[in-house]
Parts: sequence; C-alpha cells; structure tokens
Amino acid sequence: MLRVGIVGASGYTGSELIRFLIGHPEQVKIECITSRTLAEQKLADIQPNLRGFTDLVFEDLDIEKVSEKVDIAFLGLPHGAAMDYAPGFIKNDVKVIDFSADYRIREVGTYEEYYQKHVSSHLIPMAVYGLPEMYREDIKDAKLVANPGCYPTGAILAILPALKAGLVGSDEIIIDSKSGISGAGKTPKEVTHLPNRLGNFTAYNIASHRHQPEIEQEIAVASGQDIKVCFVPHLVPMTRGILTTAYVKLSRDISDSELLGIYMDYYKDEPFVRVLEGKEIPQTQAVRGSNFCDIGMKVVSKNNMAIFISAIDNLTKGASGQALQNMNIIAGFDETAGLQIAGLMP
Amino acid sequence: MLRVGIVGASGYTGSELIRFLIGHPEQVKIECITSRTLAEQKLADIQPNLRGFTDLVFEDLDIEKVSEKVDIAFLGLPHGAAMDYAPGFIKNDVKVIDFSADYRIREVGTYEEYYQKHVSSHLIPMAVYGLPEMYREDIKDAKLVANPGCYPTGAILAILPALKAGLVGSDEIIIDSKSGISGAGKTPKEVTHLPNRLGNFTAYNIASHRHQPEIEQEIAVASGQDIKVCFVPHLVPMTRGILTTAYVKLSRDISDSELLGIYMDYYKDEPFVRVLEGKEIPQTQAVRGSNFCDIGMKVVSKNNMAIFISAIDNLTKGASGQALQNMNIIAGFDETAGLQIAGLMP
Amino acid sequence: MLRVGIVGASGYTGSELIRFLIGHPEQVKIECITSRTLAEQKLADIQPNLRGFTDLVFEDLDIEKVSEKVDIAFLGLPHGAAMDYAPGFIKNDVKVIDFSADYRIREVGTYEEYYQKHVSSHLIPMAVYGLPEMYREDIKDAKLVANPGCYPTGAILAILPALKAGLVGSDEIIIDSKSGISGAGKTPKEVTHLPNRLGNFTAYNIASHRHQPEIEQEIAVASGQDIKVCFVPHLVPMTRGILTTAYVKLSRDISDSELLGIYMDYYKDEPFVRVLEGKEIPQTQAVRGSNFCDIGMKVVSKNNMAIFISAIDNLTKGASGQALQNMNIIAGFDETAGLQIAGLMP
Amino acid sequence: MLRVGIVGASGYTGSELIRFLIGHPEQVKIECITSRTLAEQKLADIQPNLRGFTDLVFEDLDIEKVSEKVDIAFLGLPHGAAMDYAPGFIKNDVKVIDFSADYRIREVGTYEEYYQKHVSSHLIPMAVYGLPEMYREDIKDAKLVANPGCYPTGAILAILPALKAGLVGSDEIIIDSKSGISGAGKTPKEVTHLPNRLGNFTAYNIASHRHQPEIEQEIAVASGQDIKVCFVPHLVPMTRGILTTAYVKLSRDISDSELLGIYMDYYKDEPFVRVLEGKEIPQTQAVRGSNFCDIGMKVVSKNNMAIFISAIDNLTKGASGQALQNMNIIAGFDETAGLQIAGLMP
Repeated sequence: MLRVGIVGASGYTGSELIRFLIGHPEQVKIECITSRTLAEQKLADIQPNLRGFTDLVFEDLDIEKVSEKVDIAFLGLPHGAAMDYAPGFIKNDVKVIDFSADYRIREVGTYEEYYQKHVSSHLIPMAVYGLPEMYREDIKDAKLVANPGCYPTGAILAILPALKAGLVGSDEIIIDSKSGISGAGKTPKEVTHLPNRLGNFTAYNIASHRHQPEIEQEIAVASGQDIKVCFVPHLVPMTRGILTTAYVKLSRDISDSELLGIYMDYYKDEPFVRVLEGKEIPQTQAVRGSNFCDIGMKVVSKNNMAIFISAIDNLTKGASGQALQNMNIIAGFDETAGLQIAGLMP
Repeated sequence: MLRVGIVGASGYTGSELIRFLIGHPEQVKIECITSRTLAEQKLADIQPNLRGFTDLVFEDLDIEKVSEKVDIAFLGLPHGAAMDYAPGFIKNDVKVIDFSADYRIREVGTYEEYYQKHVSSHLIPMAVYGLPEMYREDIKDAKLVANPGCYPTGAILAILPALKAGLVGSDEIIIDSKSGISGAGKTPKEVTHLPNRLGNFTAYNIASHRHQPEIEQEIAVASGQDIKVCFVPHLVPMTRGILTTAYVKLSRDISDSELLGIYMDYYKDEPFVRVLEGKEIPQTQAVRGSNFCDIGMKVVSKNNMAIFISAIDNLTKGASGQALQNMNIIAGFDETAGLQIAGLMP
Repeated sequence: MLRVGIVGASGYTGSELIRFLIGHPEQVKIECITSRTLAEQKLADIQPNLRGFTDLVFEDLDIEKVSEKVDIAFLGLPHGAAMDYAPGFIKNDVKVIDFSADYRIREVGTYEEYYQKHVSSHLIPMAVYGLPEMYREDIKDAKLVANPGCYPTGAILAILPALKAGLVGSDEIIIDSKSGISGAGKTPKEVTHLPNRLGNFTAYNIASHRHQPEIEQEIAVASGQDIKVCFVPHLVPMTRGILTTAYVKLSRDISDSELLGIYMDYYKDEPFVRVLEGKEIPQTQAVRGSNFCDIGMKVVSKNNMAIFISAIDNLTKGASGQALQNMNIIAGFDETAGLQIAGLMP
Repeated sequence: MLRVGIVGASGYTGSELIRFLIGHPEQVKIECITSRTLAEQKLADIQPNLRGFTDLVFEDLDIEKVSEKVDIAFLGLPHGAAMDYAPGFIKNDVKVIDFSADYRIREVGTYEEYYQKHVSSHLIPMAVYGLPEMYREDIKDAKLVANPGCYPTGAILAILPALKAGLVGSDEIIIDSKSGISGAGKTPKEVTHLPNRLGNFTAYNIASHRHQPEIEQEIAVASGQDIKVCFVPHLVPMTRGILTTAYVKLSRDISDSELLGIYMDYYKDEPFVRVLEGKEIPQTQAVRGSNFCDIGMKVVSKNNMAIFISAIDNLTKGASGQALQNMNIIAGFDETAGLQIAGLMP
C-alpha cells in the first residue's frame, strides 16, 4: 500500500489529482489533504464533483504528522512556499512531488531572477525534472521531483524529437502558446473574471513569462546547445487546455513523412504522447481531462522551417496527471495506472 | 464475456458509450460499431479523444451479421429509424437498448402525434422504460429497453420522491429546463452554429417539445394521477448539461428538512442520484462527463410550493451513461461498473 | 447644454453609460466621473474600448464640487452607499438617477429586510421608479429616479400588459430568469470566476433574491392586486443578457392572436419594447448592447396558462440604457437619443 | 444622397454593414439588398437585432435593376461569384466595393493557385486594395475596391510601420493569428458546430491559408522586398475578433520607446488605428463591434526581434466596417461617419 498526502490541496491541482487517484487501480491511499484556509471542511463540499467518492477532510499542515502518515507528499503550494516545506519532508524520508517551480530551475540565479530568493536551494541538485519522456530513469529513484510547468510540458514535448535528431538549424525557436484560464488558478482575480475573458483573446507576459527559462533549460539539455526561446503566451476563453505552436528553422531538407517518422519512432513507447498521422492537427478538446499530449507537425520548405503543434490539458499532463505518472514511476506501478481516461469530447 | 454492438455509432451517444465501455472493468467486448456514413473509417480518426484506446472501425449495418456477434445491441439511430431495426434484433434474440424515443411512449397514438407513424408498435408492450430508479426490476429481464430522453431523466428524477410521497397538490407542474447544445446532436445545423449560440440564451419548443408527453407519462405512473406538465426547454451556451427547475404546488405544509429527509430516504440506495444537503444547489459542471444526477430543493411556504432542481449531463445520465447502467443491470454486473467516474470540474 | 456627472463610475454601469453618452446627438456633456479607487486614472486606460473617444479622468468624489458642475448626477454606487450621497445632491438641486436599489422599494421595512438599515428613507416618497413604460409622466418631473433592477425590468415588461388587461387569474406568478455573469459586477469573485461558470449552469438565491420584492411591488401597482411572485434566478455562461420566462395562470380563455394583439397595442408607442410576432422567441443576442426589450408569448390552453418571455441586456435596458432613457425624458430630449443602436449580432 | 445596394446581403458582412449604415449621419440610402435564398423575406426577420430599424426586404439579384438604383454596390458574394457580377456593375458605372478575394491578388496566377479560374481578371488592374492606411488616395477615385481579407487587415497593420521604416531584418516573418468563429461565415458546418469549438482550441490550414499570398503581396508593396510569410491561423472559441502575433527579426538595435514612437508617428492621423502606449497589450474585446485596430509591440533584444500584436473585429475592420470606411472615402464623407462606435466591452 502506497500512502500519499497532498499538501496544499485546495487548488485545481489538488482536486484534479484526487479525481485520478480515486480511480487508481493499484494500492494507493490518500492519507491526508491539507489546506490552511479549508481546514476541517469536507473536500466533497468544496468539489461537488467528488461527492460520493470521498470522505476526505482538509486538515492544517503539520509536517511531522504528515510525514508519519505518508510515503509520498505532493506539494500543491504556491511558488515560494514549496521551498519552505520540502526540506522537512525530505529530512523525514518522505518523497516529494512538487507542483511549484521551486526546484525546476537548476541555476539558482535564474530562479531568483524570475521568482524570488530561494531558501532551500541546497535541494536543487537532488531534484529531478519530472518529465518522464526525458527523465524516466532518474525519476524512478528520485526523492524530489520537480513537476514541470504546464507551458514547458507542451512546448518541450512538441520539439523534443527534433532537438534530439539535430534538426534545429538556428539558435532560436519561437513558441506561441495559447492557454485556457484554469492555468491562472482557483482564486478569482482580474485575469479570471469571466466578463474580462469571454469573447476575448489576448497575449500576456510577452517574452517575459517565467516559463521561458524553464523551457530554455530543458532545450539546452535535449539539444546540447544554447537556443534562445521567444515565448509568447496567450489566454483562450476556455477553462482547460494549452495549444502550443512552435516555429523551428531546420538544419537540413526534410520531408513531412521523414519528420513524422522521426517523431513516431521517438515516441513509440510513450504511453501519453500521441503523434498524429496524416493531416490531423492537435486540438485541446481531444485531450481534455486526460493525460495525453497530442503532437502534429508540418514542414514549410519555402521557409526552411518546421511547425510543431502540441495539445495538452494544462491541469492534467500539464500538472496533476503528470504528477501521478511520476508517482507511478517512483512506486513501480504501471505508468498508466489511474490515467487510462480518454478526453472528454465534446 | 458480454458481447455488445453499437448500431448507429457515429453520433455523440455512440462515442460517449464507447468512452465508458473502454474503462469497463467487467468482461465486455465491443464487437462492432455501425454507421452508414462512416463505414470503413476508424473510430479514432473521427473521435480523436479515443486515439490509443481502440482499433474499432465503423461497418455498414447488417442485422444478421451483427446479431451473430452480439448479445446486446445499443441502437443510436434517430427516432423513426430505430423502429425499423429493433424488430430484427429482437427476433434474433439480441437484447436491445434503444436510445431513440420509438419505444418510450406507451400510447402509440401519442407517439404518432409527436413523432411519426410507428411501424413496429407491437414491440411497445415489451419495452421497459430504462430509468433504473423507477424500473430496475423490470430492466433486469428486459429484452427491449427504451432508454429515457435527456430532459425526462432530469425532470422525473427531480420530482419522483415528491410524487411518490403524495406531496404534489395540484394537477399541474411547471418544468423549466435548460440544456447544453450537444443535445441537438453531432450534425451542424442552425441551432448548433456557434455564432448563433455563444453569448446567447433563448427558449424553444415552448410547451410543445416531444419530451413533454414522455414526462407526463412517467409522472402518471409514479403518482397514479394525471398531472399536466408545462414544459419549456431553453438553450444554454455550453456543450453538456441539463439543469431542470421544477415548480410544484404542495399538498400539505412541509419543512425544508422534512422534504430533504424524504428525498434522502428515497434515493439512499441509488448509486447515481446525489441529494444535496444544506443549501447546496445543483450545478451542471459537478456532473459533467459523469452519470450522476444531483438534486436540490427548497420549500417556498409563502406560495405553498416546492422548487426542485436537478443537474445531469445530457450525454451521460441523459443518454449513454444511463444506457450502460441499464446494460450492467441486464448483465448482472455491478450497476456502477465503468461508470465510477467523477465529473470534470472545472 | 445638459451637464451630467457619474458618481461611482468605475463599474460596468458607468462605462456602459459613457459608451452611450459618447454617441449622444443632443447637447450633453459629461462634466465628471468619480471613483475613489481609480482617482486620477484615465478612463480610457481602464476601459480600452473607449480609447480615442474620451479624455475623462476619474476624480475623487466631492459632493459640493460635483454639484456645481452638473445638472444631473448618475449614482453608480453600491446599495447602501447611494443612500449616503443622494441627499447631498438633492439638497444642492442636482437631479439624481440612482442605479442602486436604495430608493426603489417604497416600504422602508421591506427594503431593510432585504438590504440594510436605510439612512435617508425620507427621500423615498419623492423617488420615481424609473421604468418609462410605467412611469414616464412622473419621470419627466422627477428629482430622484430609482433606476430599476435588471431582473425586475425584464420581468415586469414581460407581464405588464397582461396585468393591466386583467388576464392574470391567480394570486401567484412564477418567474424563472436566466442572467449573464456581468450582472455580478466588475469585481472578481467566486461567482464570476471563469472556471466556475464556463460550461456550467446553475440557480442561486432561490425564491429569496432581493429583486423579488421589487417585482412584487410593481406588479401590485400594475394590477391593483397582491400577487405573490416565485422568482428563481439562474446564471448563464455568457457576459450579457437576461431571458425571463414567466408562467401566468389566465383569468379567461384567450387565443394566441388576441393575446398578441393586446401586447402589440399596449406597447405600440414604446420605442424600446419590441413585441415579436408569429412564432418568434426572444433571444438575448438580438438585444445585446442595445436598449431593447424583446417580448414573445404563448397561450397553453391545456393548462389555462400563458408563458411570457422577455430578453434584455442587463447592462443596458437593465441598467445604463434605461438610465439614459430616463435622462432623456427628464431633459426633454428625444427619448431614443443616443440609444438608437442595434444589438450586436452575432 | 448616396444610394447603395448590398448584393449578397444574407451573410454576416451584409448584416454588419447594415448595422453601421443605419446609424450613418450622412445622406446614405440603402436602396436594395439581394439574396437568392432569402428573396422576399424581411431583413428584420432574419436579423432580429435590426427589428425596428429597417423595413428592407431581400430581393433576387438583377444587375440591371440594381444598377439603376445605386451609386455603389457592395458585393457580399463568395469568392468565385463576385468575379461573375462585378463586370456588370462596372459596365453600368456603378462603383463596386467587393468583400471577396476575387480582385485582391494582383497576379492572376497566384489567385488561381489558391482559389479558382478567374473569369474577369481584366478588372484586376483597376481594382484598388481597400486598406485605407495604405491606399487612401487611390481609393478616393476607385471604381472597384477589393476590400481586404480579415487576417491580412490585422497582419498588415501590425507590421506596416516597421516595414516602411526598414526595420525588418530578414526575408521572413512569422504571423500567428487567432480568429473567432464568425470568420467561417453564417452557414452551419463542422467548423462552426458549437460542440466542436467550445472549450477547444486548434490550428488549421497551417502555412497554406489563402490569406498568406495576400499578406505577402502587400508586404512586398510596403517594404519593396520579397519577404516570405509563415502564416498559421487558429480558431478561438469566441464569435468575433482576430488577434495577430507577428514575429519580426530586426535590421538594427532599437529601443521599445523608439519603436513605439515610429508607430505613433506613422499612425498619428489614422482614425481607426490605436497604438497602445506603455505596457498595454491589445485584446479583441476592446475592439468588438468597432472599426478599430489596436496595436501593441515589444522589442526582444536578446533575440534581435520585435513582436507586434494587433486586435481587430474580423466582421468590422476585417470586413464591413472597412468597407464602409472605403465608401466614406469614395463619397467624400468624413471617413469615420457611421463608424464612431466604441467596442462592446464587456
């Protein structure tokens, strides 16, 4: 029996993780969920979709008590808070799967430039970036998994095989991403205010979003090169989903079918990446509520360029589904356990 | 091993049923899916959410061939077409779960007034109305299940305990329902054209919708009285979900807590009806993609009236989930098998 | 030259009013807009749709200074704040058009039951309920106009001719209303949080909404009878619009055409009420951004009932358009000045 | 009195044009609207937002009869049909403002590659591309205006000052556009089917859309260079609006403020282009229903690149508003007549 706890479970990542854990076929038990603001409230009262599935009650966080009860702690805390709590769990031999950015960036200076002062940077070297398609072997033995950001997940998976195959022919990549509003979290704010968003489309944090250095870091790992990313995120009037359109200069002539072949081959054993054949184009609805990343591509010979498009659900493959995938890897379970759910379409 | 086929599988009911069957834990096999228009096409090409889950290919309908392969045939055909095909399956000892209205209305004259000439009305007497909360025992042995309409499912479940308890104090009930657009089906038409619907709300078929006699029929069964329903459906700019607001004159004084108690008691063993406590009000999102019907209520003493509100997913409890529930009952499986999925929220 | 000011102009009612005033063909000048939170900010920076149309800058509210500058003050303040400020303007001979509920309810006890302690109830007798279709003559000379609530506007207009014609045959009316989210205002909160609303439909404040006594009050005026309203509002995943479905027992047999004739006749001179002929059903999109109220109806002989449906834009006829209509009446302008704008469709 | 007719008025461009013409302050009269499918039907029955504003009735198209009645004919016909009818109007000395692509592309071979065989290519040399910001002087005397496509309008305006200033430093530009669904027209089809689009985001016609050569053509005119465009359009779950994100390599170092200054200067006399200062980013809602194009920009020094973002309403500045702007120019009216309408926000 694997015992898990969710620390900071009041947000979307918490409830989404629980939605999957409820249907998990292996021996997993949610021992506790914590939330300062919701302590003593029933989860099912807050998330009425879970009524009838769970009697879980939020409790206040006590690291020592939680550490006694669980083998793995998922940290659903904001950036800057996770770094306060992770050391305690690690010290108590509890493995940590952290949703925040606190251990994703390997250069503490870069982290501090985009986020804030780091108070437990000594843990960064032991953290494994939780993208199974890149780091599966390392995740198996990880004590601290830095679960990737939603945009980086979609962006990296879209171009990873091209990077590995040496197809990128310039020192920069343009990544134009479009995200549903749930990415902004569960707390009402200007950016999530329905009249501000419905019937509206806009960009934000142009070439200055915190996920840009995260994408650049992993591109460097995958390609062995320094490649500058120009990343522009946009807000789509929908709840879930990220579509990423990546524009890449090619290092050589290549046909659509050869490129497709490279992708099919690269991802052939990946349970959650679906490379689309023919002329199919990814759409976010096809992955809604599921852990899949759908990828399509097209060569534009005239411009010596390839366009890669990926679709993920930002709350699932972009957060909680990927976290559960990491848990399965750590626990030695079937990697797809609890995640064999098709997207909700329509 | 239970062998099933889906006849007329190209629509939303077909793909939704397959989404659930894919995760069904019991021994069920989809032997065939038929569609005239999509014959020889792969299901996963039409429903990209199902990529990686199934190799099913649509085939043209041949009743004899299908009858050899399956124990139960789900009919996802339009009203008026189901009545052509059901007799052949019944003759071949294949059990039928029919999504159409063709066998729901017991009075053939009423059916023909609202729909069209009936060509296999001799089967109506053997048909069981597939609402497990009313007809579970009959469904167990049914050869032909008339799966309920989406609006009737939400409306009947909202008022059933009140009817049974003799709380309805007049000969009429007002039912004001609001449905997502997927209820209009998969074929593009004026009513589903996005610019006609987004940012728009309207009513349609005022007091003349085909589901009105279906609701009246089952209310008569439940109450033993003739009660006239005034039913007004509305279109909500969303894909899934029906919220029903029913206004019922009371036969006697009753408190909120007594009324709630009656409902809690009536539905206490129902796996897919959730009676909301306290001041909670049903919302369609809490049941999206799931087979639940959430019910709330309030007594308005001043008006000697009670208001009942139910929320269902029209494609799930209002169609394919309920059909699968019926299949589980017929097959003797756990009634919730394959349906233990929480709503997608947000 | 009519000089106006908007006190509490930071919300939707303020910007919507300015949108209309900008195109007003008569001599009207916006002398000031006030907002405590936005003081010294440019309106066009807050409302980018108004860029290029206005140089207005928010200022802090000083009743004396505003009183010197304006003939009419629109109060866009919250309920409970308007009652603090209106007396000052009235004393300074500035006419007031108040968006809040503070002077709508004639019985101070009822007001205090639904809202809060009233601190300037002495002004209630001089206030005119600003529904031109009922009180046009009184509005002409009003010093204080209580601009109607959004739900009451739609509900009252839907049934007013039937009330006047003595067609209501019972002592209760059911009003089932459905509103876009902008009715909840400009401040982000749970109820306006996009992931809570998109793809979701629910009811709220069942038979307990503050607009219920307002509707009942005006029904009593129109009909000369005490009629109990059972009012249930719902939230539609769209920004603007209210559709109201009213269920009314009839006092006598009447045909659809006679009923339509009564409505056509009653509203024949009303510039902003459009009675729909034939089988047309109101839809909110047809009035979006405009000051119209579209009304349709159907007799249900079987139930001895009529169903009335109205559509308005809650921010326009339900708030700022109606306020401007009232200003036009007070100023002796063409009542439609600045309001001859068709709905935005699609 | 300017007499105009709208040929092929049943679509969105027709009704949108009429919405503006209704409020036009100059002497303009709509003499006729034609539609084969809607002949003899009232416009207000088809477009209920226009009820009360117009008695126009659709008539069948007879070029000779229309030519007698009008000075200017707007052609709202599909691509391939306009080319059949324009010659007749031109011959009859009726000026033509054509919404289709038929006279936009100067190289008939390019037109025929992307569209179809051209049957009146002799008119192409006399056609003026109806983008006032580039061709105002030519439009004044034009007999045939080729009203620009929606995507090209947004894309060209976003980069025009940079092109003119010689800031483009490579031979290719990436244009990533996102459009509302009304761009697909008024006829229901798969791509406009609400359940296919709501909660969904996707790309289409990747680097192969018909608007790509149109954009390239005008970029060549503006820059004097051959610049290859890589154009990827996407579908946003909203009705109106196009946001365009253009990625441009710079020919030299430039600061944000210098770039902004170039844009402010270039567009300083344009009535419908609003260059956003400071850190403001265009959003489609701010221009919804209006004729404005909002433009924002950012220099990304690290990548030696600038990002330009524009927002338009595809039905307005992207179609009917621009057509009316062209009519005003031809007629010698104030260019903004009838178009001084702020966006509908929220």
